Amino acid sequence: MSSKANAIIAQSGGPTTAINSSACGAIEAAMKSDKIGRVYGATNGILGVLQEDIFDISSENPKTISMLKRTPAAAIGSCRYKLKSLEESKEDYERILDVFKAHDIHYFFYIGGNDSMDTADKVNKLASETGYDLTCVGIPKTIDNDLACTDHCPGYGSVAKYVATCAMEAGKDTEALYTTDTCTILEVMGRNAGWIAASAGLARREPEDAPHLIYLPEVAFEYDKFVSDVKGVLNDFKRVFIVAGEGLRDKDGEYITSDTGSFSKDSFGHKQLGGVAETLKDIVEREVGIKARFNKLGTNQRSAMHFASLTDIEESYMCGNAAVEAALSGVSGKMVTLVREDGSDYSCTTGLANLSDVANGEKIVPREFINEAGNGVTDAMLDYVRPLVQGEAPVSINEDGLPVFMRFERKPVDKKLPSYK
Amino acid sequence: MSSKANAIIAQSGGPTTAINSSACGAIEAAMKSDKIGRVYGATNGILGVLQEDIFDISSENPKTISMLKRTPAAAIGSCRYKLKSLEESKEDYERILDVFKAHDIHYFFYIGGNDSMDTADKVNKLASETGYDLTCVGIPKTIDNDLACTDHCPGYGSVAKYVATCAMEAGKDTEALYTTDTCTILEVMGRNAGWIAASAGLARREPEDAPHLIYLPEVAFEYDKFVSDVKGVLNDFKRVFIVAGEGLRDKDGEYITSDTGSFSKDSFGHKQLGGVAETLKDIVEREVGIKARFNKLGTNQRSAMHFASLTDIEESYMCGNAAVEAALSGVSGKMVTLVREDGSDYSCTTGLANLSDVANGEKIVPREFINEAGNGVTDAMLDYVRPLVQGEAPVSINEDGLPVFMRFERKPVDKKLPSYK
Repeated sequence: MSSKANAIIAQSGGPTTAINSSACGAIEAAMKSDKIGRVYGATNGILGVLQEDIFDISSENPKTISMLKRTPAAAIGSCRYKLKSLEESKEDYERILDVFKAHDIHYFFYIGGNDSMDTADKVNKLASETGYDLTCVGIPKTIDNDLACTDHCPGYGSVAKYVATCAMEAGKDTEALYTTDTCTILEVMGRNAGWIAASAGLARREPEDAPHLIYLPEVAFEYDKFVSDVKGVLNDFKRVFIVAGEGLRDKDGEYITSDTGSFSKDSFGHKQLGGVAETLKDIVEREVGIKARFNKLGTNQRSAMHFASLTDIEESYMCGNAAVEAALSGVSGKMVTLVREDGSDYSCTTGLANLSDVANGEKIVPREFINEAGNGVTDAMLDYVRPLVQGEAPVSINEDGLPVFMRFERKPVDKKLPSYK
Repeated sequence: MSSKANAIIAQSGGPTTAINSSACGAIEAAMKSDKIGRVYGATNGILGVLQEDIFDISSENPKTISMLKRTPAAAIGSCRYKLKSLEESKEDYERILDVFKAHDIHYFFYIGGNDSMDTADKVNKLASETGYDLTCVGIPKTIDNDLACTDHCPGYGSVAKYVATCAMEAGKDTEALYTTDTCTILEVMGRNAGWIAASAGLARREPEDAPHLIYLPEVAFEYDKFVSDVKGVLNDFKRVFIVAGEGLRDKDGEYITSDTGSFSKDSFGHKQLGGVAETLKDIVEREVGIKARFNKLGTNQRSAMHFASLTDIEESYMCGNAAVEAALSGVSGKMVTLVREDGSDYSCTTGLANLSDVANGEKIVPREFINEAGNGVTDAMLDYVRPLVQGEAPVSINEDGLPVFMRFERKPVDKKLPSYK
């Protein structure tokens, strides 16, 4: 390694409100270090590395870099490209190291979920085996909050704050119109883990507040029980507000939106199309006989910078910073984690976990966070998530009354290798 | 009329972020007047009057009343009950006057859209014919912005601000992931008028910004043209972000989501289920061969108090205030309007229009606000909407990190009449 080595930062997987804050934390720390020369960005994650599609973040305007903290999604560019095992995709991993060598890159910071940590882990191992001096540190990211080894994930607090607020607000709408539009279903993300759906429980300060029912992928969905739940709430409050995770499954693990599973054929009687909310809407209208409607926030829930959690944005920045600090102190093959300190007041520091442990783990909502009936959450869940939604991240508003976001200039780094594949 | 007569306030139709601000303006003005005794609320609009389901707003905590300005939806309670003509529903109109008489109500403030103004107009006329002293003033409300006689409608500015922001944010998400999730469709409300969809045009500061395409109900939807639009944008920017009004129709006026219209049968080849966004997603995936996803904000767009337009909330309050002022000065049979003053700087005052003119009118997006290709908006549209989204309404945040909303105690007014129907 020359006296100054270059660093590369990449983002991967579904964007979040906070992933750019993590990038900002890493970039600003890296640019301050006298061990690091240029800080590069890989356009669209590991794909950008493979394709040698790299741009020079160091030459961006510092204001642009600072505005990362107030910009949702993934400004460097994300991807959904998953590398296979070292045996199956050895050429890909070698290519990654070739690109690193060609550009004197000896620091690799990968912001992403468990697939990304798996990739980073394998790159790190191959570098070590082949004697290439590489420091590889992962930075966690996922609105799904399902990464192992960390108390919670950067990105989760913001989606939790936004989804809970949306449940409160749409709940007021349902309440206002309960003579006709009696049932509202809010579909939220989370295919395997119900953390996002569970966070909506924060909205319910009084029993009659929305959401009255919350369904998580962790609990097998039962058709008859659902119908009975809805009838019960309707009886109590004359209206019902439901939050549903997109990945609801029946007892056989089949998605309830699937048109091939036993559940859809036996119980529904007809092919289910569309998402979870539409499926539930159909059931409510058919079985309970009331009008139902649904809201599907989609990617708006993971990009709602205009009402992001300040705690989340600051912790995400802290993770980026900590990754660079760790790398500079010689740590490699680790992911930064968030550690909730003991004590009645919430405080959070960073730790480190092995990339391989994160890659192979998954954290779903524990049973004690879900109520006995399987249609709501417990105080333990609310106590867990409440500190994560505290504070509102600042938003810069333009003269047109709308937020200001940044976009990189993306000054390309000259390619030095033959084209990929 | 005794020296002090009572007033009743009712809300009707789809809730908005601002309808409670209008109520607040009317309530606070009415409670200050020495001509008005008690201020009553009709639970769920005209239904509450018919059912003599009335509560005493005067006895609510003033803080609760003040918090109306920061609470979305319709705190008094709304309905979708439409009265027929005076001839067909004479008994209903007489019942309304009977309830008013029984409770010494001589001021009727109805906050709603054109159906509500029609109801208020007919109640007013019957009172006049039968010699009952009633002062009847309407207060406009609709996110759809389609009321005649007013420059714009309370509620519209807030949904415009929120939808444009959501388009910016989800647009960033699409941009980050354009290697795989190339097309995002944002479905917004507006069955007959495309004002909400059009407002999303504010989000596009640069050509590559979202939304690249905006479709309004005012322009007949053409299948082939849509496919060609999407291909064109994809060619330019490698991604496409579409905003679509829920009420898109073909050249025969048939909703494109209909499964009976000629359009769906001839061009789509199969039954279309679900909403507009799903229909467009299907077309994009089938005809363009890229992955598409959709966000359907649903009732969250009309209840997004956490990012409401301050201009809208203040103007809505002003409308409520102006209605009471007009009533106290002897005006009846009118609706308050918003009047945009001439001049380069935006300023807005209130005016008055005949209830009957509002009841029978509808204001759709004029052709000069829509671009020639029918897939976007013009600067004239943006100049119209920009002043309406200025400023952020204050939000009270609780120690749990979420907004605080009010709910009336609803102290009932004793019934004096036999049950309705």
